Amino acid sequence: MAKGDRIWTNARLATLDPEKAGLGVVEQGALAVRGDRILFAGSRDDLPADIADGAETIDAGGRWVTPGLVDCHTHLVHAGNRAREFQMRLAGASYEEIARAGGGIVSSVTNVREASEDELVTETLPRLDALIAEGATTVEVKSGYGLSVADEVKMLRAARRLGTERAVAITTSYLGAHAVPADYKGRNGEFIADVVLPGLSAAAEEGLVDAVDGFCEGIAFSPDEIAKVFDAAVALGLPVKLHADQLSNLHGGALAARYGALSADHLEYLDEAGAKAMADAGTVAVILPGAFYFIRETKKPPVEALRAHGTAIALATDNNPGTSPLTSLLLTMNMAATFFGLTVEECIAGITREGARALGRLADIGTLEAGKRADFCLWDIDDPAELVYRIGFNPLHARVYGGAF
Amino acid sequence: MAKGDRIWTNARLATLDPEKAGLGVVEQGALAVRGDRILFAGSRDDLPADIADGAETIDAGGRWVTPGLVDCHTHLVHAGNRAREFQMRLAGASYEEIARAGGGIVSSVTNVREASEDELVTETLPRLDALIAEGATTVEVKSGYGLSVADEVKMLRAARRLGTERAVAITTSYLGAHAVPADYKGRNGEFIADVVLPGLSAAAEEGLVDAVDGFCEGIAFSPDEIAKVFDAAVALGLPVKLHADQLSNLHGGALAARYGALSADHLEYLDEAGAKAMADAGTVAVILPGAFYFIRETKKPPVEALRAHGTAIALATDNNPGTSPLTSLLLTMNMAATFFGLTVEECIAGITREGARALGRLADIGTLEAGKRADFCLWDIDDPAELVYRIGFNPLHARVYGGAF
Ligand SMILES: [Zn+2]
Ligand SMILES: [Zn+2]
Repeated sequence: MAKGDRIWTNARLATLDPEKAGLGVVEQGALAVRGDRILFAGSRDDLPADIADGAETIDAGGRWVTPGLVDCHTHLVHAGNRAREFQMRLAGASYEEIARAGGGIVSSVTNVREASEDELVTETLPRLDALIAEGATTVEVKSGYGLSVADEVKMLRAARRLGTERAVAITTSYLGAHAVPADYKGRNGEFIADVVLPGLSAAAEEGLVDAVDGFCEGIAFSPDEIAKVFDAAVALGLPVKLHADQLSNLHGGALAARYGALSADHLEYLDEAGAKAMADAGTVAVILPGAFYFIRETKKPPVEALRAHGTAIALATDNNPGTSPLTSLLLTMNMAATFFGLTVEECIAGITREGARALGRLADIGTLEAGKRADFCLWDIDDPAELVYRIGFNPLHARVYGGAF
Repeated sequence: MAKGDRIWTNARLATLDPEKAGLGVVEQGALAVRGDRILFAGSRDDLPADIADGAETIDAGGRWVTPGLVDCHTHLVHAGNRAREFQMRLAGASYEEIARAGGGIVSSVTNVREASEDELVTETLPRLDALIAEGATTVEVKSGYGLSVADEVKMLRAARRLGTERAVAITTSYLGAHAVPADYKGRNGEFIADVVLPGLSAAAEEGLVDAVDGFCEGIAFSPDEIAKVFDAAVALGLPVKLHADQLSNLHGGALAARYGALSADHLEYLDEAGAKAMADAGTVAVILPGAFYFIRETKKPPVEALRAHGTAIALATDNNPGTSPLTSLLLTMNMAATFFGLTVEECIAGITREGARALGRLADIGTLEAGKRADFCLWDIDDPAELVYRIGFNPLHARVYGGAF
């Protein structure tokens, strides 16, 4: 076996190994890294001598180690914010008044169209830094505020750039089918034909698309319209995901499952059949408590049905300016526990292993297992439950990304 | 007029001046400091030349400046956490099972009694640092997990020590009447006579008590029992505050008002008459959304009644291990807006001016006005509404405490 570069000893590992129960805990653990890979993660007693010989040893001081955190659903690249709209709403303004004042998704589209790629990157970095400061090592970023071929491509280029500006892996989702811009109002089909599909081709040609996403909702696109976009993704060999069943039950979860989607996300209105279809297809349920909270939704995702059918559950921030200006995965866990009753184990798995699964990257990240990328976090906590229990507190001690820190 | 030591120019001030509307905004502002005091806060055009002459000038870069943040209700000094209890509850354990496993307030009392004063300080500093990192310059800390004369005094000594370990003002509240310990079960009156009142005398004699607090609730102390504690506070010349009407309406708000209390806190079950009595007495309503959220309360404090009667409204974290493990004043604002519909102006006033009022310190802190302590924050935001709107994001640029940073 190869010699390790560096070994963390005296560590308590939450490996998230799917073969093990719960968090896959190894109390007297060691973690060996070579290059950007985990060589060994397990009991210190099982650490092979040839890995240990001559490797630099770091005493983890009994700290807990988890996989690096994964935020598998964000709209992190955007321009401007909607704080003023939030303020107007609190002061009693109607949606009409807010729209007249230039609020709503229209304002985000206008701002993104007016911003250069550089400006998008500059505006997004503080949000990305907030995620990184809490241990995020992989962040998904969607397009969807450009809504023209050039502006969607610009957003995805900006997203890719984030991964060169910071030590973090960025995965991209093309979300041309996010909303219908004003000049295509009532002409969804034409917008898909004129913009969404050509935008997808253009972005995919540049290698900017890791997955194709859509917003299936009464206020956005119908299942038939989404299917057209998904068909194009399939033709390009790209995986799909879907904003599904957030505000009403259009059977979006089932639609996603039919396409073997990586994930269906939101899911407040998902029904039992949808949960089963997703489980059968291996489609991950991505729960987004930040949006539930911010829009004051009362209908909760069907956690019991997801559990009953064995649907995988991931959590994400859904960071976006309109419905979830949230940049904390730790707080996302606390909200999932508090609002939806997710257990500590479900929460931690949701922002590590299951988040990786929702991005189709579980073979490479999401658990502490030999062969995977050396992305992990050391925490100043006595118990993993503290990561979920505390509110607005960051106990990150160190973050290792691809073996480097 | 005295010469300033240092002047921040090119600043946008949210002065919170009570004479001005809303946030008391001065767009083209300047802020002059001498020693630990504000010499001038206002329009740059009004800055007297004798202040400006020779003072060090700092370009605030157009940033917003607010008063330093005030957390006017915390149980920050405690030992251990209740993450395991949180985990058990999510996993479906009953309160009985949690109690048998050593959970509940009993565990916090046991931990505090076993901890030394040094250990209490060491355990508390990371929580205090989290508040400071977001701009807190004054933090109230209560006793109440000792429940013996010696342990209550120990907690307050630890609280005072925090103010020497960090550049932050600590105010203390004696909360001997927080809970009845097991050995006094059913004998509240004896506990007050044996422990609460002697503890108050002992702590006050050491100068450890800035205010006297109590928990008026079916599960804690009756209004008549609280009145005994308040009478003792009055005899010592100490102001009072009260945990009131959180889980039921015992007319705690009205009781607090009768004693001219600085504040009554929680108030989910406060009625109209209580809101009016508090307004008439100048008793501040301290709203604690972290506890509302964490215990999944559904009854909201009567914000409309408070507004109608002109009761002052403050916000605080209520940081405590059992019902609000929250260490973020920014998130406290977001929750108050999201759950209770407080406006941006009410939220920001609630953690500055009104927080200071709830501590009886408004003459010295809480606004940007000449003569007050130079406690203030510079923020990387374009609009004060962003402080309330974002979730889990800290835009603090710099924090000035008593003129130093
Ligand atoms: Zn989304
Ligand atoms: Zn309290």
